[in-house]
Amino acid sequence: MSQIQETVHQMGRQARDASYRLSQLSSDEKNAILHAMAAGIRESVPQLLKANALDLVAGEEKGLSSAMLDRLTLDKKRIEAMAEGIDQVATLPDPVGQVLDQWDRPNGMSIEQVRVPIGTIGIIYESRPNVTADAAVLCFKTGNATILRGGSEAIHSNRAIAEALQTGGAKAGLPDHTIQLIPFTDRESVAVLAGMDKYLDLIIPRGGKGLIETVVSLARMPVIKHYDGICHLYVDPEADHEMAINIAINSKTQKPGVCNTLETLLVHEKIAAEFLPKISAALVARGVEIRGDEKTCGILTEAIPATEADWETEYLDLILSVKVVGSLEEAVEHINHYGSHHTDVIVSQNQVTAEKFLRAVDSACVFHNVSTRFNDGGEFGFGAEIGISTDKLHARGPMGLRELTSYQYRVRGTGQVKS
Amino acid sequence: MSQIQETVHQMGRQARDASYRLSQLSSDEKNAILHAMAAGIRESVPQLLKANALDLVAGEEKGLSSAMLDRLTLDKKRIEAMAEGIDQVATLPDPVGQVLDQWDRPNGMSIEQVRVPIGTIGIIYESRPNVTADAAVLCFKTGNATILRGGSEAIHSNRAIAEALQTGGAKAGLPDHTIQLIPFTDRESVAVLAGMDKYLDLIIPRGGKGLIETVVSLARMPVIKHYDGICHLYVDPEADHEMAINIAINSKTQKPGVCNTLETLLVHEKIAAEFLPKISAALVARGVEIRGDEKTCGILTEAIPATEADWETEYLDLILSVKVVGSLEEAVEHINHYGSHHTDVIVSQNQVTAEKFLRAVDSACVFHNVSTRFNDGGEFGFGAEIGISTDKLHARGPMGLRELTSYQYRVRGTGQVKS
Repeated sequence: MSQIQETVHQMGRQARDASYRLSQLSSDEKNAILHAMAAGIRESVPQLLKANALDLVAGEEKGLSSAMLDRLTLDKKRIEAMAEGIDQVATLPDPVGQVLDQWDRPNGMSIEQVRVPIGTIGIIYESRPNVTADAAVLCFKTGNATILRGGSEAIHSNRAIAEALQTGGAKAGLPDHTIQLIPFTDRESVAVLAGMDKYLDLIIPRGGKGLIETVVSLARMPVIKHYDGICHLYVDPEADHEMAINIAINSKTQKPGVCNTLETLLVHEKIAAEFLPKISAALVARGVEIRGDEKTCGILTEAIPATEADWETEYLDLILSVKVVGSLEEAVEHINHYGSHHTDVIVSQNQVTAEKFLRAVDSACVFHNVSTRFNDGGEFGFGAEIGISTDKLHARGPMGLRELTSYQYRVRGTGQVKS
Repeated sequence: MSQIQETVHQMGRQARDASYRLSQLSSDEKNAILHAMAAGIRESVPQLLKANALDLVAGEEKGLSSAMLDRLTLDKKRIEAMAEGIDQVATLPDPVGQVLDQWDRPNGMSIEQVRVPIGTIGIIYESRPNVTADAAVLCFKTGNATILRGGSEAIHSNRAIAEALQTGGAKAGLPDHTIQLIPFTDRESVAVLAGMDKYLDLIIPRGGKGLIETVVSLARMPVIKHYDGICHLYVDPEADHEMAINIAINSKTQKPGVCNTLETLLVHEKIAAEFLPKISAALVARGVEIRGDEKTCGILTEAIPATEADWETEYLDLILSVKVVGSLEEAVEHINHYGSHHTDVIVSQNQVTAEKFLRAVDSACVFHNVSTRFNDGGEFGFGAEIGISTDKLHARGPMGLRELTSYQYRVRGTGQVKS
């Protein structure tokens, strides 16, 4: 057994033990610990800045881009925001203990389905050090122990944050080993973590497609994936044009680099000649490049011809692919075939058409007359979000605290036996 | 690309297409198709018997045990039971379309969380041909397309059953390729299926630990696992002894070869000297071998000393490991450490103690004063069961129709954009 294996397995056993103690904490106890964790962060400002400086120096030596260095940077304001985030999680309702269902059987047994923590969760992430606090805190709020494995760029910052959380929390009774950070940043530690299904109930990779694919290919336990968003907007013949333009602009340009941004516009042929020039003008004025199918290019001289690859590309940039479709069915087929089942919108004043679209599109979020940008835990009112799942099992779409829980059946009887 | 890859990928694409049509069927349409499938089975009795005879001859030549040959055998009675099972599934409530949650946001958006089919499900199973019908029918009822990969022993029977279902169902409008059986039984087909995350949303292996382990190590999509049941019964000092004996006998001897059978008895030291001889006599009279820890062997001369391996063994036989514990906490620790988180029971007249046990034991089913044998979809009133999940994500414990669904968020607005 390598040193990495030995260390990570030891952390696994410790996390499992911690999880049994965590599941017994009341909501009040957990919230008191959360406030103590926030205090721990606030008391560790000097240590956090010092650790972060080591990462920044190493990052500059490695030649990281200024955008990367900015992501990596902690300052007093960002550290205070981290602490405020933790205090805020303490105010959210605790899903653990919620009775999801209850019924009695003819033999007199009473069956209760109750939300319980998942147990132990591995988080594998890349450069942003604030993920250390965000992920660990949401997992703790729901009674789960975490094993964190961050990227090498932020290793000193991550260690300091994890220590501040654990030390601060311990003052209010946080069980040992609730939050553990793997001290290695090489690839083997990911493989060991992903293979450790005896001690880890779930892995959540937070990062780019390459990282997620690696974890998926290695993992023996469930993985909740946050893949691409190739999001669509379909403009129906009965759409309010002004509304459609507003929604398209908001969906495409409000924050182009995120997964719930619009990538493909589908327009019904009945309105294409009238609608496309209007929306194109509005988009081009905001710097958006249009890549159109043949019909679109026939109407819009400013459009560049789209290739097959455009329909399956998440641009994350001010580029929009545009296609003219002959029917709702063609729009739905295009979305189900080329989309990533993330967020797809219809704009229409016809309720019947809209309901058909919502039922037929196989995506986590299907929207009628609202922007794609609303696929977000905060916008859904979840208070906190661990990510937007592109999976269909357990968690789909915005993942809040509920999705960090499992359930258990508690059955109470009076001596019933099976005949 | 090998022929197996080509064929299985083609089936994957077809299953995905079928799933989009299936999700649009109403409950009435699906139920009519189910009855037509049952009729398809009834009309195919001669073909089914003929196909089954080929498997039986091959099985005899291969030297299968008589128990294995019995599992493989179809006769008129078993075929009629299969058809009746399908008719019965038609009468169950359809979970698809159920609104799980609904709320409005301050900006006027209405958010609805609705049950939808998962999409496409792979089922990998071993010798029993009736799994072909059981699994495909439950998946269809919930709007899912299936790709089935059965064992080589039953290949002719499986093909005939899948054909009868698809042909019968088609008469009532079953979409093509809803139920597809992989014509290969070699290992490569499992690997190809498990790697095909583009077309398959979920894999459920139904069979022994070796099969599940193989699927887990290969799968890129979620796997719902039905691992061992190392189930415990803890007898508290405040237990009704007669009730504890009845529950232990029922849990251990009613059907020893299944996952919800009792494997380990934990007895509080306060009552061990009085209680152990009584329960041991009752168990030994029913042919149960007792393997005890040191304290148990000190009380029961008939007990064989247990080794460490006994505590983590699923005997599936008339053998019971018995341990004397000093406290509820010790019982819980033993269960959480050695158990398989399947089904664990406390017998006690003290409600407070019982509730502590139910909260602290990390198992899918925790029972108070009832037999372990009630961890079962039928006993829970689910009407049908695809298995008993030992996973914590998505499905835990008995898996009924609900657990074969996903959900989708449908958001309706009036032009909302994100500011």
